[in-house]
Amino acid sequence: MDQIAAPPATAVKPLLEAALAEDLGRAGDITSNATIPADHVSTGRISARESGRIAGLSLAVLAFSMVDGDVVAELHVADGSDVEAEDVLATVTGRTRSLLAAERTCLNLLGHLSGVATAVAEIVRRVEGTGSCIVDTRKTLPGMRALQKYAVRCGGGVNHRFGLDDAVLIKDNHIAAVGSLATAVKAARDHVGHMVKVEVEVDTLEQLDEALAAGVDAVLLDNMPPAMLVEAVDRIDGQCISEASGGVTRDTVRAIAETGVDLISMGWPTHSAPQLDIGFDL
Amino acid sequence: MDQIAAPPATAVKPLLEAALAEDLGRAGDITSNATIPADHVSTGRISARESGRIAGLSLAVLAFSMVDGDVVAELHVADGSDVEAEDVLATVTGRTRSLLAAERTCLNLLGHLSGVATAVAEIVRRVEGTGSCIVDTRKTLPGMRALQKYAVRCGGGVNHRFGLDDAVLIKDNHIAAVGSLATAVKAARDHVGHMVKVEVEVDTLEQLDEALAAGVDAVLLDNMPPAMLVEAVDRIDGQCISEASGGVTRDTVRAIAETGVDLISMGWPTHSAPQLDIGFDL
Amino acid sequence: MDQIAAPPATAVKPLLEAALAEDLGRAGDITSNATIPADHVSTGRISARESGRIAGLSLAVLAFSMVDGDVVAELHVADGSDVEAEDVLATVTGRTRSLLAAERTCLNLLGHLSGVATAVAEIVRRVEGTGSCIVDTRKTLPGMRALQKYAVRCGGGVNHRFGLDDAVLIKDNHIAAVGSLATAVKAARDHVGHMVKVEVEVDTLEQLDEALAAGVDAVLLDNMPPAMLVEAVDRIDGQCISEASGGVTRDTVRAIAETGVDLISMGWPTHSAPQLDIGFDL
Amino acid sequence: MDQIAAPPATAVKPLLEAALAEDLGRAGDITSNATIPADHVSTGRISARESGRIAGLSLAVLAFSMVDGDVVAELHVADGSDVEAEDVLATVTGRTRSLLAAERTCLNLLGHLSGVATAVAEIVRRVEGTGSCIVDTRKTLPGMRALQKYAVRCGGGVNHRFGLDDAVLIKDNHIAAVGSLATAVKAARDHVGHMVKVEVEVDTLEQLDEALAAGVDAVLLDNMPPAMLVEAVDRIDGQCISEASGGVTRDTVRAIAETGVDLISMGWPTHSAPQLDIGFDL
Amino acid sequence: MDQIAAPPATAVKPLLEAALAEDLGRAGDITSNATIPADHVSTGRISARESGRIAGLSLAVLAFSMVDGDVVAELHVADGSDVEAEDVLATVTGRTRSLLAAERTCLNLLGHLSGVATAVAEIVRRVEGTGSCIVDTRKTLPGMRALQKYAVRCGGGVNHRFGLDDAVLIKDNHIAAVGSLATAVKAARDHVGHMVKVEVEVDTLEQLDEALAAGVDAVLLDNMPPAMLVEAVDRIDGQCISEASGGVTRDTVRAIAETGVDLISMGWPTHSAPQLDIGFDL
Amino acid sequence: MDQIAAPPATAVKPLLEAALAEDLGRAGDITSNATIPADHVSTGRISARESGRIAGLSLAVLAFSMVDGDVVAELHVADGSDVEAEDVLATVTGRTRSLLAAERTCLNLLGHLSGVATAVAEIVRRVEGTGSCIVDTRKTLPGMRALQKYAVRCGGGVNHRFGLDDAVLIKDNHIAAVGSLATAVKAARDHVGHMVKVEVEVDTLEQLDEALAAGVDAVLLDNMPPAMLVEAVDRIDGQCISEASGGVTRDTVRAIAETGVDLISMGWPTHSAPQLDIGFDL
Repeated sequence: MDQIAAPPATAVKPLLEAALAEDLGRAGDITSNATIPADHVSTGRISARESGRIAGLSLAVLAFSMVDGDVVAELHVADGSDVEAEDVLATVTGRTRSLLAAERTCLNLLGHLSGVATAVAEIVRRVEGTGSCIVDTRKTLPGMRALQKYAVRCGGGVNHRFGLDDAVLIKDNHIAAVGSLATAVKAARDHVGHMVKVEVEVDTLEQLDEALAAGVDAVLLDNMPPAMLVEAVDRIDGQCISEASGGVTRDTVRAIAETGVDLISMGWPTHSAPQLDIGFDL
Repeated sequence: MDQIAAPPATAVKPLLEAALAEDLGRAGDITSNATIPADHVSTGRISARESGRIAGLSLAVLAFSMVDGDVVAELHVADGSDVEAEDVLATVTGRTRSLLAAERTCLNLLGHLSGVATAVAEIVRRVEGTGSCIVDTRKTLPGMRALQKYAVRCGGGVNHRFGLDDAVLIKDNHIAAVGSLATAVKAARDHVGHMVKVEVEVDTLEQLDEALAAGVDAVLLDNMPPAMLVEAVDRIDGQCISEASGGVTRDTVRAIAETGVDLISMGWPTHSAPQLDIGFDL
Repeated sequence: MDQIAAPPATAVKPLLEAALAEDLGRAGDITSNATIPADHVSTGRISARESGRIAGLSLAVLAFSMVDGDVVAELHVADGSDVEAEDVLATVTGRTRSLLAAERTCLNLLGHLSGVATAVAEIVRRVEGTGSCIVDTRKTLPGMRALQKYAVRCGGGVNHRFGLDDAVLIKDNHIAAVGSLATAVKAARDHVGHMVKVEVEVDTLEQLDEALAAGVDAVLLDNMPPAMLVEAVDRIDGQCISEASGGVTRDTVRAIAETGVDLISMGWPTHSAPQLDIGFDL
Repeated sequence: MDQIAAPPATAVKPLLEAALAEDLGRAGDITSNATIPADHVSTGRISARESGRIAGLSLAVLAFSMVDGDVVAELHVADGSDVEAEDVLATVTGRTRSLLAAERTCLNLLGHLSGVATAVAEIVRRVEGTGSCIVDTRKTLPGMRALQKYAVRCGGGVNHRFGLDDAVLIKDNHIAAVGSLATAVKAARDHVGHMVKVEVEVDTLEQLDEALAAGVDAVLLDNMPPAMLVEAVDRIDGQCISEASGGVTRDTVRAIAETGVDLISMGWPTHSAPQLDIGFDL
Repeated sequence: MDQIAAPPATAVKPLLEAALAEDLGRAGDITSNATIPADHVSTGRISARESGRIAGLSLAVLAFSMVDGDVVAELHVADGSDVEAEDVLATVTGRTRSLLAAERTCLNLLGHLSGVATAVAEIVRRVEGTGSCIVDTRKTLPGMRALQKYAVRCGGGVNHRFGLDDAVLIKDNHIAAVGSLATAVKAARDHVGHMVKVEVEVDTLEQLDEALAAGVDAVLLDNMPPAMLVEAVDRIDGQCISEASGGVTRDTVRAIAETGVDLISMGWPTHSAPQLDIGFDL
Repeated sequence: MDQIAAPPATAVKPLLEAALAEDLGRAGDITSNATIPADHVSTGRISARESGRIAGLSLAVLAFSMVDGDVVAELHVADGSDVEAEDVLATVTGRTRSLLAAERTCLNLLGHLSGVATAVAEIVRRVEGTGSCIVDTRKTLPGMRALQKYAVRCGGGVNHRFGLDDAVLIKDNHIAAVGSLATAVKAARDHVGHMVKVEVEVDTLEQLDEALAAGVDAVLLDNMPPAMLVEAVDRIDGQCISEASGGVTRDTVRAIAETGVDLISMGWPTHSAPQLDIGFDL
């Protein structure tokens, strides 16, 4: 799984700092401080409580060293691995107070990202053999976009643009403002650098023809039923990348993939996937 | 719904700043900048795409004024309200570029918090008439604890402690470290101020008796089946607050509530509730 | 003194960073840079110039390692210890420039927190044998609340609430707004979670009776003379915690303690205690 | 009092943000949120509870507008004014919840800075007519240096250097490192720009002669008894500025001033002055 | 000049805050505070001292309102305009102290960005009529990338990628690590999303052929003499975008443009362009 | 070169963090992540591509350890050294991905600061033997003042004031506001502490006489031709420091130095010096 590179740790630490701050508050873990001697040392095991795909393990365990630089973590699986219930993902050793202070922050991040990865992996399995890839969206949770997009990659999915600034996606409002799809594409090409791709959202086959004529890099086929997607893929015929989007569910994704579209985008894994249940035991 | 006070706006702005920064990136909304004139003005409507409970509306629309101080927002429903699909929640008026730049950040926050509130409200309805309250946990998403706990209140739930520092919750590790439940309770009372409550997690009725003898403010009855909960409530007999916890699902919550426990805590709404579908149209 | 847990180091570092920044400015210690060779190494001793109670030593010496990761500190006393003039509290070894750059920042924090602890310890001694505890208030210096409250604990005092959010304290304005003390207590109970205590400030014995009837967790007996406190303690009779507050001085504290109140709160140690004189010598 | 310019508001806001954050915590003012309607409006008066010198009023009231941009403050006295008990310093009008949320943060800052100013003013009065000025030190509270030095100016005192970087102060360690006072002064002159002054700390009259020969801008006469100071002032004879320092108390300051030194530096007002009692009433 | 959208103001403010902080320091503008009455009001004019292309005017004047919200700025030219010496670019009206406090921060930013824009504009004029565009690089000053890239656009240039994350640029080290250019291109395509372009740096015509065979979006023709560029453009024949790079100077740029390459990239304007001289007069 | 002390590393890290953040963006170095194995290790050499004066080497290489704490850097030259093309300045060893991720950030800072130092050194050589020193100004790039002023020192120059707060510089606006030069000087002396110097900008010999009569520490002789400077130096006759300023170029600087002024200030090196070309090779 060497290919899946995590976001820079420096980019993750502010989120972990915020998470630790909101859990430790002004006085820290008052229960452990009252009951556990300062020099008491333990080893804790992070383990899966159900089967799923892991994402964010090396980042989540940073919570321990951020609380106490002396805590040592050993990872037993790599991000992108599939695990079963009871599998031990990592062990952390250090002052017991430090382990308990960082435990929840670590698990909250790890359970969420692994939940996203597990959701994506499950959908990817459904389209296996079709040639379609599963793509994410900008429907992410505040402050977590780079992490959630990393979890999507761990799940076997592919990332759409990271923000409004790294690729052009022309929608109806933009077309309305300049008068025509072709004018919008030209305005975009004139405005952005040569390393920026241009995609257009189309609702009809007529719009698709316009987009192909304008020479776009990709088309987002919005809310088209499978039969229409088949026709769209036929017209596109490799001239650009095709992306199906809109109302895709786990139940409909296979049928859409079989239309031959290159990509199927879904917001569900990043805005609504349940966490993967992961626990911590001393 | 006057009772539900939102977290201080100053506490929410850093999260919105981070969310805006990750969406706008280094170059901003390059598509809109290329196609929509700088002085083009619009009114956008934020509306529900499905029925649910709203949370975070006044906070989420801050995204617009943070992008552009000239955008004016008008709210049509209060947090804590139930809405139906097509209901207009708010209208925002200002430069079209500014509206499109902040749209996704606003919706991502609003959809998530309303999803939490909707999930809690649905569970609260299931226990109606029993006297039990639904309580949240510390299983929240990184950086979002105060906001998610606010959403829980909007859903009709009650907040457990906000972090490790504002209340004592003694678990098995703490008891093991000092030798007995009674010693742990005494150590905690000696360590914390008079305004801090002490709760103990118990797995058995014998432990419950110990806790009651130690004079705790609350007991967390961990993973007890309904019959055992009935017996526990009977032994507690108003001496302290009773909280059922562990593996509670939407299917089992009613039966648990009928045992007479004061509180039922669930992590699911804050770590795994799906978003409420909310859209934005110019 | 194992019981006194310091605030998380991560919570203290921003304050030390601000303090170092305001002392080092844009150009650093220009005097030492001009006169002391970069590789010159020394050992410095931090020692008491007068007797008192130490607080914040392990946190204050972080200033040295924050300036220069190679500086090594050895602590000779624990927070909460009583020291005499000339006692060496810690030794720090490293580049002389680094020691001099961090010296004042370390001492300013240590002298202040030890001043608070010494003041509290002195008051605690005055009430010895009475059963009353000395409690702090929210009258703290900006940015230093968690640290000052830690110093109070080092002095043998007890912490009142840490902020407006972790406990309810109903005062006259709140009662006026809802119409009666009983209504205010009920409104608070309905609004907050089960782990939050409710205290009410009362000026008269009639109000005290109302508070007791409302079932509060604690009463703040405001500005009552000793005779009235005796009567109040009698009426309370263990139903809730009693706190005497208002205009308590070192001269009057013993008489108040002898009335039998559980707690006596004083703002003076955190807003006005003089520093403990602590010096640094190479 | 037009001369006393406050530090830039932008420099003060981070401190107020930290102070508000530590008071409002994660959930805000839960007592007021439970009992006071969101749209309830009041006017509060900030007034002196004892006589003293005011400092930081315009900065401290920023706490209200930072909590709620709609709160309006009206100031009745300027910083640097002397007030009597019961004098109203300012009135603030706005949502009652906002007033109560910011009250303590405002008062904690204002009471502290006015305490510093009052302490300095009292000392300045003691040396009236002597020609000596009272100067502060770097013995300030963490994060508050610029504010405390402003309070010193409001008290009629004069500021010594703001940090290690804006002026040279050569002490025994620096002299020891380079071998002689004269070499240290030359090293400093060579190292710093032409707009930086050089002061040397001297313990004896022989050292003073060396310093004068080296052509320094100022000498710090450390811990010299009055008779020795008279001799020192005589030898200096206007060649540079003279500063008496070390163990100066309110009792000894007049005698020192009468020796004819230009400046008398004292750390006490910034590290140990008690607050000025200032209250807030709705 | 409607097309040139500035970076989000929220992204610029931290840089201006840092710049104001380093100019105002701990005590602010002590000269103006000592000599200019607090309520003295002036109007200042920002004007060009030499001819050039303006960039960053609306952003740079934010410095004034950040110091003092009451300062009003009126802009007389738009970014991207050419101005002559003595042209007034903007007028700012407000407290004189505020104008002088922000003046240097405003001018330092404006002069630098306009210097970049002027440098780019001069180079763009040299290649006029050739069809080649001038492109920037990642050789920017720390903390100023988005601003400098905006200045490049104001100068008539085009932006290359904004960072290491928004486009792939395969160089010799990457090819060496995987074994061949083709393998590197495939690895990149597999790793990144569909909205990310892939460019390869080639030193020889053989490498160019490999790159074309691999189907890249753009080739960077590194340090090729004009004759070789002509041959390269011929081989590319519209299959992908061509970029000449390496050692391009103002003297050689025209000859390179005449080879028919699409883009010519130069680091000089962002790392070494002299400022445009812009002054401020009350 | 022991004398040249760099700014505190803690003060430099925020700038490097911002620079790394703008280069790594949300997804990091996607090209290296796709092509270079995570555990691939290399040694990179930082070497001069042209001759010049080095500044900021130890600070710039912090970029590597900030990306990856395991990277080890070895420095081969000290700041303030003159180097020739091909000289190796430093070697860094660690994960190849980490080296490539930090390379550009390191070089952008190092090339810029060394460009400033090289420019200053070249000017200093031109005035060799005259006794005049080259001084910088406040015309620096946003966020880089302390670093650029350090580069000036590495170039053999001297620093003028660091900001508006550490020295007084009275200009025409200040004189106009109070009525006369003498009044302005007196107002300044009354306002600032004893460790702050006062300089006045004068345009004429009459103003110079006024300034000398007022007893200033330095005069800034603004835009005076050499003959007038000779006369000015003659009148000053050692009473205070003399600084020539305004329109000084590399061509005119020698003639100005020969007038006998103490200091010649130039903004060019900090606002307009081209970078020194420095490269990085694995």
